[in-house]
Amino acid sequence: MDVGVIGMGPMGGAMARSLLRAGHKVTVFNRTRARAEALQADGATVAPSAAEAAARDAVITMLATDEAVENMVFGADGVLAGLAKGGIHISGSTISLDLAKRLEEAHGGLGQGFIAAPVLGRPPAAEAGKLFVMAGGDAALIERVRPVLEALGQRLFVVGDRPYKASLVKLSCNFMIFSTIEQMAEIFALNQKGGVDRATLYEVLTESLFGAPVHKNYGRIILDEAYDPPGALLGLGAKDNRLILEAGEGLAVPLPFASILRDRFLASEAVGDGGLDFCAIAKRAAADAGL
Amino acid sequence: MDVGVIGMGPMGGAMARSLLRAGHKVTVFNRTRARAEALQADGATVAPSAAEAAARDAVITMLATDEAVENMVFGADGVLAGLAKGGIHISGSTISLDLAKRLEEAHGGLGQGFIAAPVLGRPPAAEAGKLFVMAGGDAALIERVRPVLEALGQRLFVVGDRPYKASLVKLSCNFMIFSTIEQMAEIFALNQKGGVDRATLYEVLTESLFGAPVHKNYGRIILDEAYDPPGALLGLGAKDNRLILEAGEGLAVPLPFASILRDRFLASEAVGDGGLDFCAIAKRAAADAGL
Amino acid sequence: MDVGVIGMGPMGGAMARSLLRAGHKVTVFNRTRARAEALQADGATVAPSAAEAAARDAVITMLATDEAVENMVFGADGVLAGLAKGGIHISGSTISLDLAKRLEEAHGGLGQGFIAAPVLGRPPAAEAGKLFVMAGGDAALIERVRPVLEALGQRLFVVGDRPYKASLVKLSCNFMIFSTIEQMAEIFALNQKGGVDRATLYEVLTESLFGAPVHKNYGRIILDEAYDPPGALLGLGAKDNRLILEAGEGLAVPLPFASILRDRFLASEAVGDGGLDFCAIAKRAAADAGL
Amino acid sequence: MDVGVIGMGPMGGAMARSLLRAGHKVTVFNRTRARAEALQADGATVAPSAAEAAARDAVITMLATDEAVENMVFGADGVLAGLAKGGIHISGSTISLDLAKRLEEAHGGLGQGFIAAPVLGRPPAAEAGKLFVMAGGDAALIERVRPVLEALGQRLFVVGDRPYKASLVKLSCNFMIFSTIEQMAEIFALNQKGGVDRATLYEVLTESLFGAPVHKNYGRIILDEAYDPPGALLGLGAKDNRLILEAGEGLAVPLPFASILRDRFLASEAVGDGGLDFCAIAKRAAADAGL
Repeated sequence: MDVGVIGMGPMGGAMARSLLRAGHKVTVFNRTRARAEALQADGATVAPSAAEAAARDAVITMLATDEAVENMVFGADGVLAGLAKGGIHISGSTISLDLAKRLEEAHGGLGQGFIAAPVLGRPPAAEAGKLFVMAGGDAALIERVRPVLEALGQRLFVVGDRPYKASLVKLSCNFMIFSTIEQMAEIFALNQKGGVDRATLYEVLTESLFGAPVHKNYGRIILDEAYDPPGALLGLGAKDNRLILEAGEGLAVPLPFASILRDRFLASEAVGDGGLDFCAIAKRAAADAGL
Repeated sequence: MDVGVIGMGPMGGAMARSLLRAGHKVTVFNRTRARAEALQADGATVAPSAAEAAARDAVITMLATDEAVENMVFGADGVLAGLAKGGIHISGSTISLDLAKRLEEAHGGLGQGFIAAPVLGRPPAAEAGKLFVMAGGDAALIERVRPVLEALGQRLFVVGDRPYKASLVKLSCNFMIFSTIEQMAEIFALNQKGGVDRATLYEVLTESLFGAPVHKNYGRIILDEAYDPPGALLGLGAKDNRLILEAGEGLAVPLPFASILRDRFLASEAVGDGGLDFCAIAKRAAADAGL
Repeated sequence: MDVGVIGMGPMGGAMARSLLRAGHKVTVFNRTRARAEALQADGATVAPSAAEAAARDAVITMLATDEAVENMVFGADGVLAGLAKGGIHISGSTISLDLAKRLEEAHGGLGQGFIAAPVLGRPPAAEAGKLFVMAGGDAALIERVRPVLEALGQRLFVVGDRPYKASLVKLSCNFMIFSTIEQMAEIFALNQKGGVDRATLYEVLTESLFGAPVHKNYGRIILDEAYDPPGALLGLGAKDNRLILEAGEGLAVPLPFASILRDRFLASEAVGDGGLDFCAIAKRAAADAGL
Repeated sequence: MDVGVIGMGPMGGAMARSLLRAGHKVTVFNRTRARAEALQADGATVAPSAAEAAARDAVITMLATDEAVENMVFGADGVLAGLAKGGIHISGSTISLDLAKRLEEAHGGLGQGFIAAPVLGRPPAAEAGKLFVMAGGDAALIERVRPVLEALGQRLFVVGDRPYKASLVKLSCNFMIFSTIEQMAEIFALNQKGGVDRATLYEVLTESLFGAPVHKNYGRIILDEAYDPPGALLGLGAKDNRLILEAGEGLAVPLPFASILRDRFLASEAVGDGGLDFCAIAKRAAADAGL
């Protein structure tokens, strides 16, 4: 297909390369042009504006925050202006339920399609085409872009008939990640003070009932205290945790674990750990234990 | 080896059978004698007292609470009285760190050995010899009973040189289970209110980054609301969660997730769910969401 | 002084009457005109628009939410348009720190003054002129409207040189109220289950170390379960608690008690108590105790 | 009356002096005899054993922990042995509900009376006879020692017909104190980071709706960070908070605020603040805010 990709951060860049490898025609746009040009060697065309990148069968946005998506979509020379009637906007980043609903309405009003297809996985997984893609939106729209969605990752889940539902599932996965970090942080601190070797605990966990990638990957980072350079910024984790709390607020669902995480993220930022990997929230459990 | 097993609940009975299958000579004792006699068909001998069951190379206790272990060990005709000098008491159930330390001291004072080897897994895993065994204590003692420990499960982890460390690791695993239940309970409630099918969420989770047995097994119980008949009683879960909080208290380690779980267990008991499976704490997150 | 008052809810109406009693010239505006006209008997003039009400020495806004204030200030025929250069906008309701900053900037840019002077107290206190007023903003501005601020309540506190600081102090007071409700809700439930008469507990508390108005007034409501009709809506309490959490977010300050309250408010709304008095969050502690 | 007082810490000593001032005949005992002898100048007689001190109309125990009370009551030459049939043991310190029940049963079995009459207030209040006394137990017993109870403080509350109920009410008061400290700690941190003077906030609080002794006294300590020397040890606060959590456990009442406090106490001990005044748990909210 003829696809635009907007946002050439580590995730967006990797996703564009996955599409190129799968044989799609890819046009990229990035606010800082140099980052887009880096994709030319892989076969991508660089568009001069978001609107131009969006003037295809489909366009993927892969941007860090709701605000960035709003600017890129609703702004002058934005996605809304460039996408043809019948074109499909695929939101690949993690956005709020509210924004998903507003995008659905705005695109629908112009005869354009909108689906949310946030991805699960960090940049190395994106490079390897190993992302998990969770798509929400009109089933017919999803079918039309299925070749694109499948090229992005190892597995495509269709999670609902409305885009916001994909946001909800993705945020839920992120919540699972954050709360698993906190789980392990608490018992790592406890066992360390109790004289149990942390590496032994990690081994017992990951080779018994707790051997999912979430345990192995994030547990390893905590074990090695490998928070710098960050794989994903603590500030971005804080943003996603805020979005899950907002989702709970909107749906009247108390989320006590997410509230604990909120305080971990805030305390991390307060003591100056905002520039570390988001796994560094584990340092708070250790600090509270006097470690 | 010549081994006694004390406590013929679903776990103890299954463990005795595993030992018999592995060729060990097994003598069993249970306060309610009929339960012990049920093992005779499998080849076990029934002892008339705990002391008699303990008069072997090694004796395993598999009892529900600290109090039950104390009574069986320190009481008249108990383990302490029956075990020969050089004999080894293996505590297979989940006991407090304090009791582990007291047992270590009491047995040591009599020239007996004591190791803690709590097991991870529910009765069906015990029957299938699929338990995980985490042993703590003097390395030489552990080596002497290794054939017994290995017969109990699929994998033996040696987690430390003191028995209480095995208690700590086992309690940590239980905490991982309880807090994973709460994680999933929160997002199941959130997604349900958001219109996302719970079965879809379960599939996305378990087939992406969250596919460990803890996710699959306990998530399935929550998904199916299969809380009755209980696999493990909510009251026993509450007891283990109390032990992990006590461990945190003793080591000065705050455990905010365990505190949330405490309130879930207490509220479950308060509303009359104490006789259900411990996964039923998930009902609290749903109730708080008005479901 | 010549003062406008915008927003004739129970609080705004009472404040307008206090100003009239103190001899000020009062012009009122309310979106639903009938509510404004009810003040004519007390001597107020009814303005046809917010702009007209604002065309005085000073104008007070007393509106339920940030959104309502924004509409009334920035909208067509709004406060910004009507206030003369040198006129002063006094925000009497509880607004977010962000809005306080935006209003300060917007008014300042037009040569108008802005101070935040949120009030503490419920409608009966407002009618009796017994409110507490906490003013933030430029000291010279506050002095100019001091006769107005003093007429509103029994005590004026100047809490800082910027308007948002008054929002922060007021939200802190609301947090004190909400968390005192939760304190008492927890021990009322505990003592009731322990067989201690709740009225006895209330007496012990309020006649020993815990005899502040916050204890007596809100404790009495909980004791009597007098949640309907509401003195102040649970939904408004939820809004203020959200604002305090947002303030914590903006300043990187974890607020664990406020997070507990968040879940109380959400659960209350989820089970259908949103239309009760905000003290009804106390029902959650009782429900969790099986009462 | 002829009264024994056991435990000559700052509280017990002050209480003995109050009794002497009120004209009672007072015999004191303390494990470290010198502390008892210090009371001789005030007119007290020193007993050589707890049993001897208890051989009066009534005997008051004022000891720091459950364990200390148990040793002094059940031990050789203890209260139980010394108290005559018909004599009354008054437990003045804060004990667990369980111990209150066990003491009631033990004394009752010997034809002795037992009431719990824990006191609210710190040593200076005790010296000034300004304690609040909350008595639980058989009404006739309470009447018999009313002159003693009234001499101890400014106000006697009879809170229930069983001794454990007085423990429950007293622990509830302590919970109110601890959670008020946390309330204020959170908003002091928030306002400080928001640029509001803490002393201004303290003034607004205590001169508006939050002017109870609990606010003024403990707020002042937090404001001045006057944690050393301690008025009451953080470790003792931790003990009382543990007792309130145990009461919640026993009665199946979740207490989320008390769980937050638990983590504050543990973190305080973990970072080395265990020897400060218990108000120093407020340092944790500040530390989490990066202050």
